[in-house]
Amino acid sequence: MTSKIEHIGIAVSDLASAEKIYADILGVEPYKREKVEHQGVITSFFKTANVKIELLEGLNDQSSISSFIKKQGEGVHHIAFLVDDIHKEINRLKKLNFNIINEKPVEGADNKIICFIHPKSTKKVLIELCQNKK
Amino acid sequence: MTSKIEHIGIAVSDLASAEKIYADILGVEPYKREKVEHQGVITSFFKTANVKIELLEGLNDQSSISSFIKKQGEGVHHIAFLVDDIHKEINRLKKLNFNIINEKPVEGADNKIICFIHPKSTKKVLIELCQNKK
Repeated sequence: MTSKIEHIGIAVSDLASAEKIYADILGVEPYKREKVEHQGVITSFFKTANVKIELLEGLNDQSSISSFIKKQGEGVHHIAFLVDDIHKEINRLKKLNFNIINEKPVEGADNKIICFIHPKSTKKVLIELCQNKK
Repeated sequence: MTSKIEHIGIAVSDLASAEKIYADILGVEPYKREKVEHQGVITSFFKTANVKIELLEGLNDQSSISSFIKKQGEGVHHIAFLVDDIHKEINRLKKLNFNIINEKPVEGADNKIICFIHPKSTKKVLIELCQNKK
């Protein structure tokens, strides 16, 4: 695939304190916050020289981010690869027996459509594929 | 800091099967394997368009990778930022109260000197700083 890493998603329990920490580490402020209501998350984005960092806080207990933190604590939640044609990439990976969570891509943050590859297929790394909306 | 992500490290229990999976996902073969004896790991590197992926398998039970997997299973182990001057960056982060694991940098894979920021300081993300050896 067009294997460019677009962002790294980090699950956090408190967005404001995490923003402070990552602003200190990266030496830049976050450039936007965005709610993705249907996924139950609020996100905050930082730019680095080559990859974005996305901090994610769950908006409610049903959010996958809240479940993730309950199960294994804060930390890296997913790695997102930018692809040109997400449908083509889903088909390619399905043929290779990867387990795709959203065979029909869903809306993500930052003007993207996205899908996830199940961590069972990837040595426990949640991999997102994302494509810029036309 | 010069906030470019150099690589993402993924802890795996079996390097060969992980290489097969990531070659399938990324559509490229790993470009090298390298042992880092004093850290007790064998690594395998993939290039993507902007960031390397480093798979790490522990060489023995004392390896930090083996401990990591025993504790929380396979998955993302660390995110590495490339810096121009690792000593300067360590000093900057210490002043900001980050807990630096190796205040004196150690040898890493891929011709680098490296140090880690303790995950307690970073919302449970193990962050590596790396500098190319002169």
